[in-house]
Amino acid sequence: MTSRGEERPLMNTTETTSPGRISPMPRDARLPADRPVTLANWQQAPFNRWAFAHANELVPTAVIGRRRELPRHEPKKGTESAILNRTVQGLATFLTETNTEAFLVVQDGQVIDERYFGGFGPTDRHLLMSVSKSMCGLIVGRLVDQGLIDTARSVRDYVPALSESAYGDATVQQVLDMTVAVEFTEDYADPESHVQAQDRVAGWRPRTPADPADTYEFLTTLRKSGEHGKWFQYCSANTDVLAWIVESVTGVRYADVIASELWSPLGCEDDAIITVDEGGFAFANGGIACTARDLSRLGLVMLGEGLLDERRVVPASWVKDTVAGGDPAAAAGSAYQSIHPNGSYRNQWWVTGNERGNYYGVGIHGQYVWVDPRSNSVIVKFSSWPDALTDGWSQSHVEFFHKISEALTPPS
Amino acid sequence: MTSRGEERPLMNTTETTSPGRISPMPRDARLPADRPVTLANWQQAPFNRWAFAHANELVPTAVIGRRRELPRHEPKKGTESAILNRTVQGLATFLTETNTEAFLVVQDGQVIDERYFGGFGPTDRHLLMSVSKSMCGLIVGRLVDQGLIDTARSVRDYVPALSESAYGDATVQQVLDMTVAVEFTEDYADPESHVQAQDRVAGWRPRTPADPADTYEFLTTLRKSGEHGKWFQYCSANTDVLAWIVESVTGVRYADVIASELWSPLGCEDDAIITVDEGGFAFANGGIACTARDLSRLGLVMLGEGLLDERRVVPASWVKDTVAGGDPAAAAGSAYQSIHPNGSYRNQWWVTGNERGNYYGVGIHGQYVWVDPRSNSVIVKFSSWPDALTDGWSQSHVEFFHKISEALTPPS
Repeated sequence: MTSRGEERPLMNTTETTSPGRISPMPRDARLPADRPVTLANWQQAPFNRWAFAHANELVPTAVIGRRRELPRHEPKKGTESAILNRTVQGLATFLTETNTEAFLVVQDGQVIDERYFGGFGPTDRHLLMSVSKSMCGLIVGRLVDQGLIDTARSVRDYVPALSESAYGDATVQQVLDMTVAVEFTEDYADPESHVQAQDRVAGWRPRTPADPADTYEFLTTLRKSGEHGKWFQYCSANTDVLAWIVESVTGVRYADVIASELWSPLGCEDDAIITVDEGGFAFANGGIACTARDLSRLGLVMLGEGLLDERRVVPASWVKDTVAGGDPAAAAGSAYQSIHPNGSYRNQWWVTGNERGNYYGVGIHGQYVWVDPRSNSVIVKFSSWPDALTDGWSQSHVEFFHKISEALTPPS
Repeated sequence: MTSRGEERPLMNTTETTSPGRISPMPRDARLPADRPVTLANWQQAPFNRWAFAHANELVPTAVIGRRRELPRHEPKKGTESAILNRTVQGLATFLTETNTEAFLVVQDGQVIDERYFGGFGPTDRHLLMSVSKSMCGLIVGRLVDQGLIDTARSVRDYVPALSESAYGDATVQQVLDMTVAVEFTEDYADPESHVQAQDRVAGWRPRTPADPADTYEFLTTLRKSGEHGKWFQYCSANTDVLAWIVESVTGVRYADVIASELWSPLGCEDDAIITVDEGGFAFANGGIACTARDLSRLGLVMLGEGLLDERRVVPASWVKDTVAGGDPAAAAGSAYQSIHPNGSYRNQWWVTGNERGNYYGVGIHGQYVWVDPRSNSVIVKFSSWPDALTDGWSQSHVEFFHKISEALTPPS
């Protein structure tokens, strides 16, 4: 027996295996339609033509870095803000004690504080975890604007393979806002949880024999638990459903859509990466890794109501709808509202409903892009918290982000 | 049972598991020395600090490309040379019929012909297969110049863990020239061959339960078959031994050494990647992927006797020693000499011994960097031949490279 199944597809070329699945090679359809690329066959023709240009999708890789130019945006690397050091007591200690790898503050479009820790640097890519979700939200917004997605329609209209799943009769908007009623346990520490099962399917944990072949198949197994649209239920799989919709309506693999619809329009300085599973599915809900500077652009484009460096990246209406938030009543009683009493989740963003109007993307183990409109600033933080959600750390991070924002706010 | 062993290390931090193995984190020694990073533990502290910055070393990834500037070196992408189209009959047909993805000709430091096929483009990275070996040769040359390696010394002096293997009493020069006598079958199509076993260990093929944990362990299992230094025996594992020596003498992981000792000095325009196995070993003998333009720099630096763009990349003495070739008698009767009767293998480069003084790096399935000193040109070709060594194609490629070189040679 082999440790990675010979018959398990790394790539599928058409929807023959799973209705609605799209080709991973929309610009290169030379592979037989019914034959997937696997670890057992990728070196053979005709699979090798695609595989030799995508070795990183089949085997883990290390990066051999070229010599970099200095970042185009000043100031120089590692600059600390005198204002923040003076006014935010305990900032340096806080960053050290919360296992920070990167801390970046951008105000009025300029980097005013940039610190790296523990060997991590400005051209290193850090895993974003669920901040990846907030990127998906903006991509869906672009596709809505292009007329490719109608958020009032049901998921089954875009991905027939999901018709019998929890998602079949959920609207795209419900998926965006995480008000889908689905049997899904998002307990990161429980090996029996759905979220750990999804990790195994995604290649993030050792597989077990009973696991579905890939994320596409996994999503079809999820079942409805009640009426959609009533309650906020944070479920990572929702974002992967959105990514599948994106692939279906564009005919392009999700990783390539991120590149063309978000990464290039944002003017990012470095390539990002996204983990892929044995079915070639890019792990939309948490698998993106990028530099701190590039992540800050995500906050900047929100502050700019969809404009960045005078380029239109996301429709203004989509940004406005997002930052206005969803229905706080849907999240009543949630752990989230214990920190943000008026908080809601809208279009894959966390909207605090506080008086400063903060909204943010966040990932387990301490990944943040935090937006403060009042001071026109964006805070990025990459961390390696000991736990997915270390007790009290979500609260303490919010408090520090508030202190920083206040220090940067001009007196009125 | 899990499909990837929970106990199998993806990274080791010290030589405790295998004497001579170096830390994968030489600049970041926060992990416990006796605990490896595995797919089962990487999300937990303290492993997650390293792992969140190196997700690509644990899980396959897709690239999310940024918008690129145009290449710094002219001419524009896709330029075909009128001279070559006119004088090399059948060039376009030849390229198509031999499953070419990229074809690039550089003369006098200028790109004069650049063609891409089948969706592959100028910023795509193609697997180099054994052209990777020729890069290792240049890196060893730099370390010899720095006094870190003496090619007359035995492998065991640098990697004690290999003392009992075939390599223990082989000199570094014998490893460089592939005159180590080792029980190793380099039959790419035979599932029982050593080279396929090494593929499995490297993560390139589905594992079997009896396989060694990683390439480090695999190399220690290889046994001597006779007297070293007598005969040329092409053995891919030799290059991995060189990479292990490089790690031992530098204390830095091989992928990082390539970046600092070759990729940055060459001024490459894009990052390269290299596949890594479950022990964190970068697959030196064949696992590098890069762009066609960046690979051309490897030939250019050889033409420049170690200088590129007036920067010293490799010692001139090392380049001269390499292109002068080894002892053709050692390769008597080889398949190689059926094409190049005076051919030899020196410092991980193929030296033809023909009247034009050609030398080259080559990889299975048709990867080439071909150097023609007389016309001061370099030819790069990426291909996906149907077989590792398709019958007659090695010969026909050499003939085409000759035609091209002749077309580019000024009349004397």
